[in-house]
Amino acid sequence: MIELQFSEHTRTWVNYIHELQTRICLALETIDGKATFSEEHWERPAGGNGRTRVIQSGAVFEKGGVNTSVVFGPVTDEMRMQLRIDGDGWFAAGLSLVIHPYNPYVPTVHCNYRMFEMYNSQGIAVDRWFGGGTDLTPYYLFEDDVKHFHQILKNVCDDFDTSFYPSFKRNCDDYFVNWHRNAERRGVGGIFYDHQRPMGNRETDWWINFAMRCGDAFSEGYIPIVARRKDMAFGEKEKYWQEIRRGRYTEFNLIHDRGTLFGLKTNGRIESIFMSLPPTVRFDYNYQPLPGSPEEALLQACQHPVNWLNA
Amino acid sequence: MIELQFSEHTRTWVNYIHELQTRICLALETIDGKATFSEEHWERPAGGNGRTRVIQSGAVFEKGGVNTSVVFGPVTDEMRMQLRIDGDGWFAAGLSLVIHPYNPYVPTVHCNYRMFEMYNSQGIAVDRWFGGGTDLTPYYLFEDDVKHFHQILKNVCDDFDTSFYPSFKRNCDDYFVNWHRNAERRGVGGIFYDHQRPMGNRETDWWINFAMRCGDAFSEGYIPIVARRKDMAFGEKEKYWQEIRRGRYTEFNLIHDRGTLFGLKTNGRIESIFMSLPPTVRFDYNYQPLPGSPEEALLQACQHPVNWLNA
Repeated sequence: MIELQFSEHTRTWVNYIHELQTRICLALETIDGKATFSEEHWERPAGGNGRTRVIQSGAVFEKGGVNTSVVFGPVTDEMRMQLRIDGDGWFAAGLSLVIHPYNPYVPTVHCNYRMFEMYNSQGIAVDRWFGGGTDLTPYYLFEDDVKHFHQILKNVCDDFDTSFYPSFKRNCDDYFVNWHRNAERRGVGGIFYDHQRPMGNRETDWWINFAMRCGDAFSEGYIPIVARRKDMAFGEKEKYWQEIRRGRYTEFNLIHDRGTLFGLKTNGRIESIFMSLPPTVRFDYNYQPLPGSPEEALLQACQHPVNWLNA
Repeated sequence: MIELQFSEHTRTWVNYIHELQTRICLALETIDGKATFSEEHWERPAGGNGRTRVIQSGAVFEKGGVNTSVVFGPVTDEMRMQLRIDGDGWFAAGLSLVIHPYNPYVPTVHCNYRMFEMYNSQGIAVDRWFGGGTDLTPYYLFEDDVKHFHQILKNVCDDFDTSFYPSFKRNCDDYFVNWHRNAERRGVGGIFYDHQRPMGNRETDWWINFAMRCGDAFSEGYIPIVARRKDMAFGEKEKYWQEIRRGRYTEFNLIHDRGTLFGLKTNGRIESIFMSLPPTVRFDYNYQPLPGSPEEALLQACQHPVNWLNA
């Protein structure tokens, strides 16, 4: 067994994600007004632990999880083969959240920010990278909402590098895709980046700082949208369509999502990994929205990604 | 483009699966008494076609599909890599059905029987194998039902080889498994076999005949169970549990099922592949049935496969 020698950076990052977890949960509880998060701490036998916080049956949020995990261990043969990971030891720490509102006019949201390290056989860190993103999955399209969401992310990106938003926005459009459905996107995107390594004058602290600013911006991007839509009246038709689209969300998460695959291949805690799955889902045979309907407008935006900010 | 030279065997088999499809749909429509199957023919641009028959919103069956497909084409690099298939041309023909009843006391059922061939660059068949199986996924455990279901399958197997039932029953228990949930089975099993090649005095006709007898036995195994359970009264609690278990069904089909993977990797028709997904599903965080409850009894049978016939 290798003893991994964690750096000061890992401590900074781990403290941050725990603090962010608390802040985000509070913001979500406040706007929900009814339900609160319950927490479970878990230990990963092969190394590390996590804090799973789940909200259920709220006034606004039907199901959601805001999880942190700090996990590490030796690189197994399965990880080498299936995740194409090299090295002797690994470390991963991140925050991951998925929120499924009850009202179909309130979008589902996902964000995940993580730090990854590889260690050699002496337990010395030999590689480090950052990844993350925030993306929105509405059931009905309100352009103002989508523009606000993207603008908040662009503002953060622009403070670091003006090439980030266009690049990370495109990454997001290219990642959350149901390829088996003719490249239909899961939602209206956001930003996504991965494998960002400290280099030149962008050292570890710079990337941690970028991830922190992205994490801090989550509530600013999402909560105002919830506030605007949560009391809109809806009927069975809208709920039905939401559940159909949640089916697509399920397909993406179980078939394509690398985070899910990583969790399964590293013997992660199943209930924490699958907290991302929507509470209720429909799989109809060959469901097609009516041409010209609001449902079809949403589908179009998923089929043909939009440059929301003309940026 | 290789011109595949199909044998008389493929014709026999293709005729059979079409005829079986019609027979099974009729048996299911009869016991449903309300809904009928609608049919869609589809063409696969790279070779072949299919007949998808779907039943929805019936008196008994909430959603179900009885599909045949006869597909073929050149072996692509993706198939070589991801499906570990060798050769120049391939052919696959089979019947696949999944039936999701509305009443939680009526089990879900799946069966699939298929013939596969590989061709060389001259279009000559150089390899051929058979696979298939029938398995049951109840939401509540009625031992008599499960024993009846297994007995019918054992009777067919025993007429061909008395080692088949115990061996194919174990295959089934080992295949329909959510490995990510600590080897929890999808249901109470049945039989499953794969890669059975004509050899010695068990030529192609012998294996086709075995598959035909298995296919013929489907209705005898399933319909009496439907008849016994379809009018049992149930409430919200039972429906809820059914939808939780349907979540497990979804997890298996999207994460582990080789048939789904094969369909996705060969650009199959998505709506026909996903007709297997349950109509409504719940994903609760960490749902646990009460100790000693009927729900827990079912779960136990999925966690620890039972030798139903003491065979």
